[in-house]
Amino acid sequence: MKVGGRDTTTIWCEADGPAVGIIDQTRLPHEFVTRHLRDVAAAAHAIRSMQVRGAPLIGATAAYGIALAMLEDPTDKGLTDAARLLLATRPTAVNLRWAIADMVDLLKPLPAAERVARAYRRAAEICAEDIGINRAIGEHGVAAIAAAWRQKGERGPVEILTHCNAGWLATVDRGTATAPIYRAQELGIPLHVWVDETRPRNQGAALTAWELREQHVPHTVIADNAGGHLMQHGRVDLCLVGTDRTTAAGDVANKIGTYLKALAAHANDVPFYVAVPSPSIDWTIGDGVREIPIEERDPREVTHIVGRLSDGTIGRLQLTPDGTEAANYAFDVTPARLVTGLITERGICAASRAGLSSLFPEVCRASVHEEPVVRRRG
Amino acid sequence: MKVGGRDTTTIWCEADGPAVGIIDQTRLPHEFVTRHLRDVAAAAHAIRSMQVRGAPLIGATAAYGIALAMLEDPTDKGLTDAARLLLATRPTAVNLRWAIADMVDLLKPLPAAERVARAYRRAAEICAEDIGINRAIGEHGVAAIAAAWRQKGERGPVEILTHCNAGWLATVDRGTATAPIYRAQELGIPLHVWVDETRPRNQGAALTAWELREQHVPHTVIADNAGGHLMQHGRVDLCLVGTDRTTAAGDVANKIGTYLKALAAHANDVPFYVAVPSPSIDWTIGDGVREIPIEERDPREVTHIVGRLSDGTIGRLQLTPDGTEAANYAFDVTPARLVTGLITERGICAASRAGLSSLFPEVCRASVHEEPVVRRRG
Repeated sequence: MKVGGRDTTTIWCEADGPAVGIIDQTRLPHEFVTRHLRDVAAAAHAIRSMQVRGAPLIGATAAYGIALAMLEDPTDKGLTDAARLLLATRPTAVNLRWAIADMVDLLKPLPAAERVARAYRRAAEICAEDIGINRAIGEHGVAAIAAAWRQKGERGPVEILTHCNAGWLATVDRGTATAPIYRAQELGIPLHVWVDETRPRNQGAALTAWELREQHVPHTVIADNAGGHLMQHGRVDLCLVGTDRTTAAGDVANKIGTYLKALAAHANDVPFYVAVPSPSIDWTIGDGVREIPIEERDPREVTHIVGRLSDGTIGRLQLTPDGTEAANYAFDVTPARLVTGLITERGICAASRAGLSSLFPEVCRASVHEEPVVRRRG
Repeated sequence: MKVGGRDTTTIWCEADGPAVGIIDQTRLPHEFVTRHLRDVAAAAHAIRSMQVRGAPLIGATAAYGIALAMLEDPTDKGLTDAARLLLATRPTAVNLRWAIADMVDLLKPLPAAERVARAYRRAAEICAEDIGINRAIGEHGVAAIAAAWRQKGERGPVEILTHCNAGWLATVDRGTATAPIYRAQELGIPLHVWVDETRPRNQGAALTAWELREQHVPHTVIADNAGGHLMQHGRVDLCLVGTDRTTAAGDVANKIGTYLKALAAHANDVPFYVAVPSPSIDWTIGDGVREIPIEERDPREVTHIVGRLSDGTIGRLQLTPDGTEAANYAFDVTPARLVTGLITERGICAASRAGLSSLFPEVCRASVHEEPVVRRRG
């Protein structure tokens, strides 16, 4: 997508060397800073500190992290240590596990001398696959936006609410939840996006607002608290969010607060779509509420906040009284019953085992063991 | 309640003069600053700028505002002008209208010379009534906490989630939603309060956390996004919130985001109680979603945030990219169907016309005109 009018991806191989370039997303929206990752420790740090974030981009960065590790130590031990280091950075995103397993499975059988080149090639393929997946999600998902546009008699912009950043910044390019939005824009469908600010890290206010501005998509930032009110008053035509992990039964783990928006959409008959690249599907589990581990992050992300001071420098404020305890759950799980449809690279399906297996029959048959139906809250 | 161990109310008459003292709540939690209101313009400014906030305290401040206006100009014109000025400060809170109407009705028939003394006396009565109401809400509401305590076998603290600040800072003393909490504390029931930070103005993180700390009630601040996840995992025994306006049918207008928590509570079988002092009941309307005007505040409350810098000074950060638009809806309406019970000064009742009229038969009979049943979203 565009940054200042120039085509950019979120991760790239430097032309003149082995280093991997990234956008330091902790500096957005106030500064556009790029960084060079030169070893696996830097890649792990980039993921852990959220210089890169978003399930697909985390996967791509982990793949390049393995490649950087092979430069340092291409032995089996080097590979195992790198995988372990990268795996520990973020517990919820399944793409991380997927990308690391993919790289390890590929490199393990190779002689050490061949691993570096193969690792770089595979990491680049993973990036290209991500872009392809997102383009396909855009092609399929735009149908939901077009349907909303027709349903309102092609009058006024289609009002889309999104949470967090499932934009191109969360992927290598195009984004997942934003892919249908950018495709609709290309097709001339008028749009307006309600951007949840997405506390505590404000990925909506900082990242989604920034990337929509750079692509000239009309948008308005709102407090996370506001979406229910807007839906109650018919101001949202559809919700469109991403996912960090989707279960085989269609439950969706995404940024904390997604579940609340899904409840409001359900109560107000607003379609609630999730953009699901297949690498984010965890075919091994069914019940997301019970089985997906939810990352708890530093409470200081809640008690303090970063932004730009009036003199242009970046500052950090304390929001709570001294000594206040805070809890910081990074994700929540939206049960499949609240999801109108999953937008995958193969099409839109119902958020259910049946829906997913209609699009991914080969994976479903291979890995989903039948589970007892468990009645759960939510 | 206590500030640094000393008993304090949120508004008071200065001992040596006509000025009215308030706590400047825009400076909390980092500084405890009091101010003197010396004329009606200062009272209006205090309400508009949210130096005082919370429906009951807004009502009390408006009453004293009328008294200050009578000092300046006790004529009919002075009274009318003051009422108009104060009425325009905040559109959603019904206590404001109630307190102003009460003062005008009382003073209008009196000779100008008698108005000052009577106005001060009545404003003091309104404050005393507020405290009495809140104490009664505490006595009745503690039953809901005690029930939750028994239901969990008197093991572990009762986990209460609250939104915004319906604490003593929102009233003259004791608070509305906090009154049952403080009463439970006095009775020795172990408690832990999840405090929604309550964006965009962070009344939870700044005010509720501060006042709970001062009263030594265990609590944890969370992002507004987190409550659904906690309820899904059985970490909340009951929700307890305030109200800015309650309809005769039991719909509740409260701080933006309350509706989302009520949806999550309903989906997870968590009791959702609203503390309702009767002056916050608007007997003239039924359908809150359609009939309650929702205040829209300055978008800069969303795009910027105030807090304490590391050097101890108060700073303001920009959170969004330059030029980003934001919308700032201050309240939302929780439909009666999502409310387990209304805790009034006369007892707990169902959130319905029947429930309210069982406790307030005299008002219901006098002012509720029968309305057609309207099917609405939400």
